[in-house]
This record gives sequence, structure tokens and C-alpha cells, in this order.
Amino acid sequence: ATSFRASEHQHIRYNPLQDEWVLVSAHRMKRPWQGQVEPPPLTTVPRHDPHNPLCPGATRANGEVNPDYEGTFVFDNDFPALQPDAPSPGPSDHPLFQAEAARGVCKVMCFHPWSDVTLPLMSVPEIRAVVDAWASVTEELGAQYPWVQIFENKGAMMGCSNPHPHCQVWASSFLPDVAQREERCQRAYQNQHGEPLLVEYGRQELLRKERLVLTSEHWLVLVPFWAVWPFQTLLLPRRHVRRLPELTPAERDDLSSIMKKLLTKYDNLFETSFPYSMGWHGAPTGSEAGANCDHWQLHAHYYPPLLRSATVRKFMVGYEMLAQAQRDLTPEQAAERLRALPEVHYRLGQK
Amino acid sequence: ATSFRASEHQHIRYNPLQDEWVLVSAHRMKRPWQGQVEPPPLTTVPRHDPHNPLCPGATRANGEVNPDYEGTFVFDNDFPALQPDAPSPGPSDHPLFQAEAARGVCKVMCFHPWSDVTLPLMSVPEIRAVVDAWASVTEELGAQYPWVQIFENKGAMMGCSNPHPHCQVWASSFLPDVAQREERCQRAYQNQHGEPLLVEYGRQELLRKERLVLTSEHWLVLVPFWAVWPFQTLLLPRRHVRRLPELTPAERDDLSSIMKKLLTKYDNLFETSFPYSMGWHGAPTGSEAGANCDHWQLHAHYYPPLLRSATVRKFMVGYEMLAQAQRDLTPEQAAERLRALPEVHYRLGQK
Ligand SMILES: O=P(O)(O)O[C@H]1O[C@H](CO)[C@@H](O)[C@H](O)[C@H]1O
Ligand SMILES: O=P(O)(O)O[C@H]1O[C@H](CO)[C@@H](O)[C@H](O)[C@H]1O
Repeated sequence: ATSFRASEHQHIRYNPLQDEWVLVSAHRMKRPWQGQVEPPPLTTVPRHDPHNPLCPGATRANGEVNPDYEGTFVFDNDFPALQPDAPSPGPSDHPLFQAEAARGVCKVMCFHPWSDVTLPLMSVPEIRAVVDAWASVTEELGAQYPWVQIFENKGAMMGCSNPHPHCQVWASSFLPDVAQREERCQRAYQNQHGEPLLVEYGRQELLRKERLVLTSEHWLVLVPFWAVWPFQTLLLPRRHVRRLPELTPAERDDLSSIMKKLLTKYDNLFETSFPYSMGWHGAPTGSEAGANCDHWQLHAHYYPPLLRSATVRKFMVGYEMLAQAQRDLTPEQAAERLRALPEVHYRLGQK
Repeated sequence: ATSFRASEHQHIRYNPLQDEWVLVSAHRMKRPWQGQVEPPPLTTVPRHDPHNPLCPGATRANGEVNPDYEGTFVFDNDFPALQPDAPSPGPSDHPLFQAEAARGVCKVMCFHPWSDVTLPLMSVPEIRAVVDAWASVTEELGAQYPWVQIFENKGAMMGCSNPHPHCQVWASSFLPDVAQREERCQRAYQNQHGEPLLVEYGRQELLRKERLVLTSEHWLVLVPFWAVWPFQTLLLPRRHVRRLPELTPAERDDLSSIMKKLLTKYDNLFETSFPYSMGWHGAPTGSEAGANCDHWQLHAHYYPPLLRSATVRKFMVGYEMLAQAQRDLTPEQAAERLRALPEVHYRLGQK
């Protein structure tokens, strides 16, 4: 019998954080691609557009005028999916027809006053201001809501409807699906093994090395063993940290610097402003989130769709929607490619 | 307090078939859309292209020449994600690094010799040939494999790399993730309530009526109470049927006719060849799938991405990837719109 090689032989891998499997079929990168090619991203975004509702001084849909902000700027989403005061649907009359109340708030956070920058093109102190704003908004909304989801959709391919650098924050009265899964998995692991799942996982990846992308004094970035998206990464603190507000100033500075490096590598991979959705997961918040959260380790997920080039993406369709996620290169191959890329942004090298 | 109206007030709904929640925020349809607009689909596909590997008489990547087929045509995928003979990764050395063997086969099924037709433009007897081919391939591959996933990716937006009408069949040595979830949920429901979940669900929807799209002697099509995609539907037999091969000739004819009606409505919604991923789920197969499958009810899921027009889709990104699916119109509103559409295809009406 042939001996197993992950880069040649399909296999399935388990995601112990979200209780899911992925099919890894690396040999499939050999097939030709005749399908949809994405439009190349806009390259000329004006630095300031008075009609863009995210710009300093612009008037928003509700008539409010943005201040002339100089760093980050947080405001209420004018078209929120979650509002603080929706009435409850009342009790369900049948187990197959269950609905429950959902309350919350949706905020938008601008990263920078200019529309023509992205995080990797911002300075480390500018990124540090974003990290501080993430920690503050978690603290503020976490006082009331059990879950505060910070996420960034970057690029038109990721449904981002505005090129200005920004993220969103949706706080909810319920633990969303993915949070529930991570809660369940991390709690079970802690009960069985006596330590947080992601603390042990980070330690293992530091030993095994083959999936590491970047390491710093306080952080590591790796392609998880169970990654679904071609160049998906996981950003983890080395120390056990439950939520963003707990990060020390030194950890925040270091986070800003490692994020800049990661996002520069991403942009360099296909010499394009790399699209992705990213978001932070930490221990639940709110009044009921008491002491028993030690199974949680703070982390950020990066889910970028590109597979082969700036215009050819991985589609999660058909088999993926109906059966199981499938990937075309191994996580180890992806980590190796990301590791090899320079930490200087391709647009800054072109002098 | 205001009284609850699903079309005005956000809430969460439970999917008892896959153990997931969706956030329904119907008021969000009011927001303006400034994001990505999809390229309109190709309107002029040639009926026959000798360089298209799915056409009759064409030469495929492996050098084989397709027969001059006149109905459906099934062949092995030249770039399969699953192959029958991959070696096993061997035992895992750590609970956070679990991999398992995956074996299987991937087939492609052409629906028709012409590249310029789609299922709704085919005749009922031509669709019936597709239904029979689905049943046969399930029987054939199900003799060996525990799961046979039939799925169709339609349209470039759904990563479909070839305009010729076709679907795929991936059979695997493992129960994929979604199949595991449906297995678990249906089994638990049967244990608790003494009848199959989807049989009771279909009966309830026939009584409640507000989410029905189409009904026929043997089948129903509805927008599930927990639908995630804007115009997602579920196609169910009225009788308790576990797998495709069990369908009677009358049920197959009726299925062909209701599918033609559903897909015609879909095309009529935005007057475009409606993109979607669809697939069949039935009881597991293979040698170990014994008698204890009565909790399974055969069904097909349709997952179409379009939201507002032929070129504006719903993006499942950011919040959806990191937290929970979110939809912008209620399932009842979607069903009402689909119900109201004609059953004659817009391209055939234009005389
Ligand atoms: O095999 P195809 O149609 O070329 O590929 C398409 O369907 C597959 C199965 O859903 C996906 O894994 C691919 O990402 C998608 O592009
Ligand atoms: O709020 P935006 O950026 O306009 O909208 C985008 O992000 C949301 C949250 O992930 C998604 O629900 C939308 O489908 C997407 O288009």
C-alpha cells in the first residue's frame, strides 16, 4: 500500500473548535479553471468623497453629519439588522416552528479618515487605535449584551458595500450559532483535559511549526489544521486571554504589528488588496457571563476567499452547502506560501 | 408594547433539521445597496461546442471521447475531489489533530445533449429521464458508499464552471457534516415524537399554507420556516419515502412536473436564468445502512443566492461566517412572491 501524504491523498480533518469536518483534496489544484472570474478590485478610491457616508464631514442616511474625525469613528448603523427594542414573537405552538426574540445593536467603526487606505497600509500606531476601539466597544456593549461580534468584510467580493476602511459590531441578546458551537466545544475540552482548547492548540502549533505563519512576543498566526478557506488563518495570543479588553498595552502594540504583517502578506500573495471576512471571538459578555469562562481563549478568524489569483476564488457551493466543506490545497501548503512572502507591502516596494 | 409582526420585527428562528438558528431582519430590505453587482449571465450559449468537455462527441481532459448521447449522460469526473483508493492518514497523535481516511467517487451527469437549455426549459419527459438517472446513480453508488450526494451548481455565481446543463454526484466513505446533522436531528425527533420530522413538517405546512409555493398530487414545495437564503425552498414528497430509488413511476412524473414549475417560477422572479445550488438528501446507503432509517424523509434543498434582482445577491459573509446566518425578508414574504409568479417561462411567453 502507498504511504499517506497529505498533499497527495484526500482525507478528512476535524475542527475541534466548531465540531465540523473538512474534506482536503489537494490533488484537485491540478484541474483547469473555466468558471467565473471576479472583476479586479477598484484601484482608484478617492481619499475623500463627500457623498460617502463613512467619510469625515459626510451626511448619513438619517441626516446626521459625521464629525471631522481624525482616528477611528464609531456610529450606529443606519440600517441595523438588530435593534434594541423588538417585541418578542411569543411562545411557539409546535416544536418545528420555534422563534425567539432578538434584540441588539449594530455599529459601524471607521478605521481611518481616508478612504484610500486599508489596515496593512496604516501605521502601527494607527492600527493600535483600532485595537483600542475594538476593546472599548466590547466593554461598552458587553455590559449589556451576551455577545459582541466584531467583524470586517473587506472587498466587494465579500459583500462589502463601501470601500472606506471600516468594520462592524453587532451585539445581540442571544449567543449566535457559531458562538454556541465554540462555547460547547471549548467547555467540553476544558472539562476533559483541564486546560483551554486553544491554549493547548497554540502550544502544539508552536512545537509542530508546519502551520505557523507569523510569531511575535505575544501572538501567533497560523493556518489551522482544519482550515476551510484556502488561506484561512487563526490569530491567537500566547497568554490565556478571555476577551479583548484584557489585553495589556504591550500586547495591543504587538497585535497591531503582527496584524500589519499578516495583512501585508495577504496583499502580497496575489498583489491585490486581499478580500476577506475576519472577526473576533472571546468569552461571552453581559450580566450573566460570570466567572466560568476560563475555557475561552480570545482569537480572531480570517476567512479570505481567493484561491488561485486576484480574480479566481474558491466557491463554497454545491457539495459544500449540501454536504461538507472541501479544500483544494493543504493547510501546510498554504502556511508555507504565506510564510515565504515578504513583510513589506508590494505597493510600498514599487518605488 | 407593540405586538409582534414577523415582517417588521427582527427575531431568530430555529432549523430543527440541521440544528441551526437564523436571524430574520425583514426591515433591512429598506437599506440602499451600493455594493457589488454581479455580471449578467451569458445569454448566448451555443447549442453545441466541440471544445466543451460536456458536449456529445467532445474529447475530455483524459482523452476519452463522449458518445453522441441523446438524453442524460453520466461519466467519472476528470478532476475528482474523492478517489476510490486513497491511503489512510493513520491514527492521530493528539485530540486536536484528527484526520481520517476519505474514499469515494465523483461523477458528472449531463441532463441534455444541448448546452443552451436548462431544466425549466426541458420537457417533462426529458426531466423524468434526469429523475430516473438520479435514482439509478443513487442505487449504483449507494451499494458501496454510505452517502451519495447529488448536487447541481447552476450559474457562474455558484461557481459553476461549465454552462452545459449538468449536476454532480459525489459518493463518500463517510457521512458528510450536513448529513450527520440531519441524521442526528431526524433520529432524535423520531425517538421523541414517534414519526419522521419532515413528514410531520410537510403536514403542518399544508395546514398553515403561508409558506407553500407549489403542491401536486405527490409533492410539495415550500419556503422553510427557517430558510436562510432569500428564496430558498424545500421539495418534499407527501408520502414517507426514504431514498430516490423508492419513488414510483407516478411520483417521478409528478416530481418532473413540479420541478419544472418551481424552476420556471425561479427564472421568472428576476427574468434571468436563476442561479442556485440544489441537492438531494435521503437516508444513508451502503452495506451498514440497515433497516433503521425510518426517521429519514427524502427531500431536496434549493439554495439560490439572488436577493433583489438578477445582479444583486445576498452575501453570506462577515456576521454570517463568524456568528449566524441572517436574512432580509421573511420566509412568508418569499413564499408569497414565488406563489404569485406565472408557471409559464418568461422566455416562452415573449412571442
Ligand atoms: O466541480 P466544479 O463545478 O468545477 O466546482 C464547483 O463545485 C464544487 C463542488 O460544490 C466546489 O468544491 C468548487 O469550489 C466549485 O467551483
Ligand atoms: O452591512 P453591509 O456591509 O452592507 O452588508 C454585508 O454584511 C452583512 C453582515 O455580514 C451581511 O449580512 C450582508 O449580506 C453583506 O452584504
